[in-house]
Amino acid sequence: MRISHIYSDFIERLATAASDAIMPHFRTGHDVENKLAGGFDPVTVADKAGETAMRALINAEFPDHGILGEEHGPENTDAEYVWVLDPIDGTRAFITGLPTWGTLIGLAEKGTPRLGMMMQPYVREAYVGDCDTAWYKGPIGTKALKTRSCQNLADAVMFTTTPALFQGEERTAYDAIEAKTKLARYGTDCYGYCMVAAGHADLVVETGLQAYDVVALIPIVEGAGGVMTNWTGGSAADGGQIVASGDPRLHELVLKGLATAAI
Amino acid sequence: MRISHIYSDFIERLATAASDAIMPHFRTGHDVENKLAGGFDPVTVADKAGETAMRALINAEFPDHGILGEEHGPENTDAEYVWVLDPIDGTRAFITGLPTWGTLIGLAEKGTPRLGMMMQPYVREAYVGDCDTAWYKGPIGTKALKTRSCQNLADAVMFTTTPALFQGEERTAYDAIEAKTKLARYGTDCYGYCMVAAGHADLVVETGLQAYDVVALIPIVEGAGGVMTNWTGGSAADGGQIVASGDPRLHELVLKGLATAAI
Repeated sequence: MRISHIYSDFIERLATAASDAIMPHFRTGHDVENKLAGGFDPVTVADKAGETAMRALINAEFPDHGILGEEHGPENTDAEYVWVLDPIDGTRAFITGLPTWGTLIGLAEKGTPRLGMMMQPYVREAYVGDCDTAWYKGPIGTKALKTRSCQNLADAVMFTTTPALFQGEERTAYDAIEAKTKLARYGTDCYGYCMVAAGHADLVVETGLQAYDVVALIPIVEGAGGVMTNWTGGSAADGGQIVASGDPRLHELVLKGLATAAI
Repeated sequence: MRISHIYSDFIERLATAASDAIMPHFRTGHDVENKLAGGFDPVTVADKAGETAMRALINAEFPDHGILGEEHGPENTDAEYVWVLDPIDGTRAFITGLPTWGTLIGLAEKGTPRLGMMMQPYVREAYVGDCDTAWYKGPIGTKALKTRSCQNLADAVMFTTTPALFQGEERTAYDAIEAKTKLARYGTDCYGYCMVAAGHADLVVETGLQAYDVVALIPIVEGAGGVMTNWTGGSAADGGQIVASGDPRLHELVLKGLATAAI
């Protein structure tokens, strides 16, 4: 039985629990000057609440599974199955009220990402993948996700968090790629990967990522027909320097361009 | 009778007509290489269709009103009432599948913006204002919009399309402002102004805007308690160099900082 079938109801329950915990803190009015009055800003409170809610469900339902989360650290991560959680990917979007953050829920089997979901509770859309297939569920129904063809940088729409993340040789290599693209957009976080999976964009190039930033996204991008690796072409599962491409031909091209700065 | 009451049903009809015309073109799968096959890209088709739909309604219901739109040019703009339309503000978000573009519908009376709506048909949210009040309608219900207090740049969250828009003295003045803010985000288009109105951010600084980029947003920002002017402190209605602030004290501070480059 496919992993996506085994856990499809459960991952929905995790997403609902995270949404219920996070949404009361989204777009709450806080005067900037008073924001830290309680010791935490709203995004930290929401992040912790979302992860706590998901961990409680996992511990209750699958006590032998491990958990790796952004907020509460690793728990039993030598287990065969490990859930990798980022309650709010895109905290800057969250704190500024923009609907382009997402809850990331990934499941790795013996270290390999096998199932992933990006869920946006305000927009009420989700992107799910199991490496073989990927699908969307949201305001315009349910549909299969499929990357688009794009074999040249001159035709490519690229996302990255911000060019400021790249330093030294990384920056040189990144800038050379960006200069050749048709359009580059910044600050899109998990949405960039999902737009590549959905065939609305072609490329994400990033660096300095953590496992919880990427494990959920790999099965979505790959399930939609794309490729997601580190800059050397190896597994993206540990984070670090990441490239995701909708078209494998484009991926190969971009890896060549980044090779001098790949570690 | 308040202008927002007179036209509240009609502006909703315009928004629905625009949404019906635009949405079939959002997130449609197009291979990049084949996108121009029909002579137009999806965003151009959607933009024109949205404006055509709104113009038809205005001409039928208020034949003596003028119309200024991005796509089809000016029509009877000496009229007492002129509708100012931008079917898709944020075309780069639109073409990359991100839900952070909006349909802008403004109504000016003798050249003064009096009523405005920003509507996002995928998220199904709208921001409306009439200079005196402003309100939100969307996934979390209906509520009044109110800017937050923030009197120092060190506490301010700022939006702009991209720093690359500012040239020469404008760039110097802009960079000095940005360097003092707590957080700057790029590429948010009309959403930036609405987030200021809703109290999730504090400042938008832009240049090179057109009337159709701003007329709909002025009554929203001002109705929520903010200030929106050009860089000299004059009316923002004609576009150009624009500042929008949630807190009038912050606005004054920012105008001083931009004064050397204000034209």
